[in-house]
Order: sequence, then C-alpha cells, then structure tokens
Amino acid sequence: MIEYKNPRFMQALLRQPVDRAPIWVMRQAGRYMPEYRAIRTKVPDFLTLCKTPELACEVTMLPIDRFGFDAAILFSDILMIPDAMQLGLKFVQNEGPTFARVITSKRDVEQLPTLDPEEDTPYIANSVQLIKKALDQKIPLIGFAGSPWTVATYMVEGKTSKQHNKIRGMVYSSPDIAHQLLSHLTTETIKYLQAQISAGVDCVMVFDTWGGVLEDNLYQEFSLQYMQQIVAALDIPVILFTKNGGRCLLQQAQTGCVGLGLDWTADLKQAKETVGDMVALQGNLDPAVLYADPTTIASKARQILDVYAGETGFIFNLGHGITPDISPEHVQVLVETVQNYV
Amino acid sequence: MIEYKNPRFMQALLRQPVDRAPIWVMRQAGRYMPEYRAIRTKVPDFLTLCKTPELACEVTMLPIDRFGFDAAILFSDILMIPDAMQLGLKFVQNEGPTFARVITSKRDVEQLPTLDPEEDTPYIANSVQLIKKALDQKIPLIGFAGSPWTVATYMVEGKTSKQHNKIRGMVYSSPDIAHQLLSHLTTETIKYLQAQISAGVDCVMVFDTWGGVLEDNLYQEFSLQYMQQIVAALDIPVILFTKNGGRCLLQQAQTGCVGLGLDWTADLKQAKETVGDMVALQGNLDPAVLYADPTTIASKARQILDVYAGETGFIFNLGHGITPDISPEHVQVLVETVQNYV
Repeated sequence: MIEYKNPRFMQALLRQPVDRAPIWVMRQAGRYMPEYRAIRTKVPDFLTLCKTPELACEVTMLPIDRFGFDAAILFSDILMIPDAMQLGLKFVQNEGPTFARVITSKRDVEQLPTLDPEEDTPYIANSVQLIKKALDQKIPLIGFAGSPWTVATYMVEGKTSKQHNKIRGMVYSSPDIAHQLLSHLTTETIKYLQAQISAGVDCVMVFDTWGGVLEDNLYQEFSLQYMQQIVAALDIPVILFTKNGGRCLLQQAQTGCVGLGLDWTADLKQAKETVGDMVALQGNLDPAVLYADPTTIASKARQILDVYAGETGFIFNLGHGITPDISPEHVQVLVETVQNYV
Repeated sequence: MIEYKNPRFMQALLRQPVDRAPIWVMRQAGRYMPEYRAIRTKVPDFLTLCKTPELACEVTMLPIDRFGFDAAILFSDILMIPDAMQLGLKFVQNEGPTFARVITSKRDVEQLPTLDPEEDTPYIANSVQLIKKALDQKIPLIGFAGSPWTVATYMVEGKTSKQHNKIRGMVYSSPDIAHQLLSHLTTETIKYLQAQISAGVDCVMVFDTWGGVLEDNLYQEFSLQYMQQIVAALDIPVILFTKNGGRCLLQQAQTGCVGLGLDWTADLKQAKETVGDMVALQGNLDPAVLYADPTTIASKARQILDVYAGETGFIFNLGHGITPDISPEHVQVLVETVQNYV
C-alpha cells in the first residue's frame, strides 16, 4: 500500500493503531463553502461541474486545503451512472434530480444500455487522476457510488421522493423487474468503481441513502445483497452506508466490507457492540449540531469521540451530508475538536 | 363504556378477548376512494373540507359504509391547531402544507395565541357529534391530533421537509425556544383533544410523523415527553404512533398509553416481545403492498395476522397512510383477508 504523509484515515479504516481519530465530512466539498459557490458559478449546472475534471479536482481540494481533513472524497454524484444511460437527468434548483425517462416496465429495464466507463464516464477516471496528483500522497482519496437500490429509486420515481411508493410498489408487484434492474445496476456500478480504482482511489464508499425505507428482509434482498456483490467484486477496502439502516448493522458487517457509515439516529456505542471487531465504524454527528454554538459543537463531538477513546477502528464523520447553510467557522470548530481530542 | 354493535376495535385496544383482529386503515377516508374525490370537488380546498362538519362526516363514513372497517377516524388534519393560530396555512397541490408565517424566534413563540376550542376550532366538536350520530353506536370513533413535535416541525420549517434541518438546528442551538414551543403546543393539543372527547370520540391517536428524525435521547426529550403529558391529561385510551420510532418502543409503552402504532419498518414479532402485555399494537402492513396482486396482498396480510393468531391486543392497520393511487378493490381484498382470517 502507498505510504501517505497522513495515514490515519486508512489506519483507522483497517483497524490499525492511530494517533487520533481521523475526520472527514460527507459533502465536505459543497455549498457551505464560499470558495465552492464561486467555482460553481463558472459552469451552467451541477452536472457540468461533476463532468469537468479540472473543476472537480479544484472543488475536491477546497476543504482539504482549508480544514485539513484526513481524507478527500471524489467530487461527483451518485447519479452519474443513470446520467450516462441517457435518461435525461437534470438537477432542478430546489427540487433535486429529475429524470425525463423513468423506468416502469421490464422493457424499460431491458432497453437500458451497457456502459463502458472509458467511453461513457471518462471524466471520472480523469478527475481521480488529477485529484491524486493534487493530493500528492498527503492523504488518501475515497471513491464512491450510489447503491444499486438507491440509484434505482431515482430511476423509478423519476425524482427525489419521500415515500418511494413507485419502487416499493414494484418490489411487491413485480419483484422480478426490480431484481433485473438492480442486477444491471450492480454490474454497471462494479465497472464504474473499478474504473475509479484503476485511476487511483484508495477505498470506496457505497451510499445507500434509501435502503432504510424497506423493511428488514426486503432491505437485505433488494439492497444489501447487491452491495455485497459490489464488495465481493472489488479488491479494495469498501465502506457501506445505509441511512436509517441501523436495524441491520450485523448483516451489513457480514458483507465483507471493512467499514460501516452510521447516520445520527444510530447509537454509536450500541453499534460498536453489535459489530465488534468485524468492521470500522464511521459517523455519526447529527449535521444539525453544526447550527449550534462552538461550545455545543465541541461537546457533542467529544461525546462521540469518547466511545472509541484510546481505540482504533473509528472515523469521525457526520451522520449525513453537511447542509449548505452551515458556517465554515463551525466546521473549523468541529475539525479542531477532533484534532485536539485526547 | 358505551356498547357497540361491533365492539372488537375497543376490545383489542384494551386487550380483551376478540372474535378476530379488528381492521382500520390510516387515511381510510381519502383520495383513493372515487366517492371521496367527488365530495372533494364541492369545496375549494382541503382545509374547507376539514372545517365543514357535514362534509367531514360524510367523508368519514365513506370507507365505513363501503369496506366495513371496525373503527372510524375523524376526518381532519394534524395541522388544525397551527391553522387556528392564524399562521397562514395553505395546502398547495402536490407540495403539501405551507405556512405564510414561520416560527424562528422566542418572540414568535411568545406571540402564538392561546386557543379556545369552542371559539377557534368549533368544527371539530361539530364534526364529531355528527359522525357519532351517523355511526349510531355501530363502531367506535377515533379522534386524533399531531404530536407537538410533529406539528412544530411544520411550524418551524414552514412546509413539508425531508431533513427538518431548521427545527433540528433549533433543538441544538436554542433548545429553550424549542421546549417553549412544544410546551405551548402540548397545552393546546390537550384542550383540542379534550374537546373531541367531550363531543364523543372513544379513543384518540397522536400522530408523530417526524419523531423518528431525532436520535433516541432527543426523541424522548423533545417528542415523547410531550406525548406522555398528553396521555396523562386525558381520561380516555390513547394510541401513540411515531413513524420510524421502532427504536424506542419500550419507552413509548411506558407512557401510559394503551396502544402503539407501528410503521412497516418495525418487526411486529420483535415489537410484541418488547412491549409484552403493556400495550396493544396496531399496524403495520407496508401500504405499498396494496400495489401488488390480490394473492400477494392476502399473503402479506396473513403474515402479520399470524403474529397475534389466537391472541388479543392487536389491531390490523397499514404502517402509514394509504396512498391516493391504490385501487379500492385491493382495499376490499385486504379487509376480507382480515375478516376471514382464522
């Protein structure tokens, strides 16, 4: 393995001794940073930013340079695969992603193209290479993809949804179509992540934002099963993160992944007891804590750090992505709290 | 207690012997019924329907007459209290509720009016009286309110929200303002439910749609505590329902309520073991099952009924409100499955 000037993220992920818990933050390169908003104005839309390697690299580096996080994460989106499938993805202001074409039938699934990462998502490998160069072996780079289930929810609903009635209906009324779609997405996701790995990412994270809307048995059948296939296909450490997935932590830990992300509704202490020495845990400060005053932020962060005090196997993070209206000064307080925790 | 021609809902709720599990369905008087949609066109908006006792009564009775549910529930909305507080509530098509005035400061909370149910929400008692007359002691009538936390989320966010960042931020940055708002809403909710009780409802249900977005300790402090105050203030059986609240079932059961609603992500068998003989359970078929074919619907319903086979203390329901695009024929299949289960 490559030697990093700051190796503590990979050390903690592999449960090797660390000097302190590493920290990074989901959506750390995002709208809460004025530097990000300035770069964002250079392109007409969010997807163009994701597809322009020089800018994606620049954005990825912003929070590393400003806050000194212990890991970088590729600037991209979980919907790059369906975007490459030409389903008419657009990001509408204040409404999130929308698709012009939605998947409703077996025929729709069968007509989905097979992608070639070099042809169809070349900007991903190009971004990774640029970022790796910019990082200069200072810290590792995390690659990522959406889980097949979560990506499928957007493709079937056609937009952001609270209830996900269409895809949950499909699970009960046409489970074969749902499985066919998920299998196809799994194959594509593996190729997509392998392209990131070939280009140089050091580990990957799979974001399962919507696995928690399924009851436990269906979560395992329609989401976790496919994430397990991804873990098995990759020869690099994988972190799985299912929002509202705290009910199935043991099953997640048994997939062969090396780390599990936790949202803020999971009890970190209980989760640690559940997974034991099987995997590292990553999380799980409520992002809304960052609205509070510095004393509260530091105190809440230390409560989390206390759970793994003196032990490895823990990566500090938020329980969900940082929101756009957070003050960067509050992020600074958080980072310094973790850096100075003893 | 009044004698009902069909007493099994109250019997099951009080864990007395029953001939079979009772069934009702959240949002049973709703858009999935063509008869409802016809009545809805008679008024300009949803709130007017809620505030017109004759129509609210007519709508409440529709699913009773068509499907033979074992309980009726008052047709109304969880936002009638903030509506009566003149905060400019509107229901925008496809967007849900929006408020013209949102609560952001201590001053906003202090300026909230104290309501008089007779003056400010007279349509509630009037509706209850009309419905009781229409039901003619055939089945009991459930009254309801939103939980203080859930109602507060709408008042602080100003609209339907997925993340509830504003109120979660308030919990961390200004917990005293949050508590002041929740205390005020609790007082108002108690009066509002007492008015329903005086008018004749047989039990009440408190809907905590958004308590599950809080981590467990904060859920208990900012949501469950106030629901417990409501339970303590009422001399009638109370059912509590926290969506995504499966992590704190024992604490919910310890409030003194007689029943707990479960969403579809809760494992009914585990929940039964957790609460033992403390409370009845109500739930928890995934509403999306109703998109499937009749055989699947019947099979999934029977899996739930099997958990309490031969025992009382269980009320069949969905794990969340029925969605508008469900076929009434599928509801018929569900009701008959429960009615014929042996």
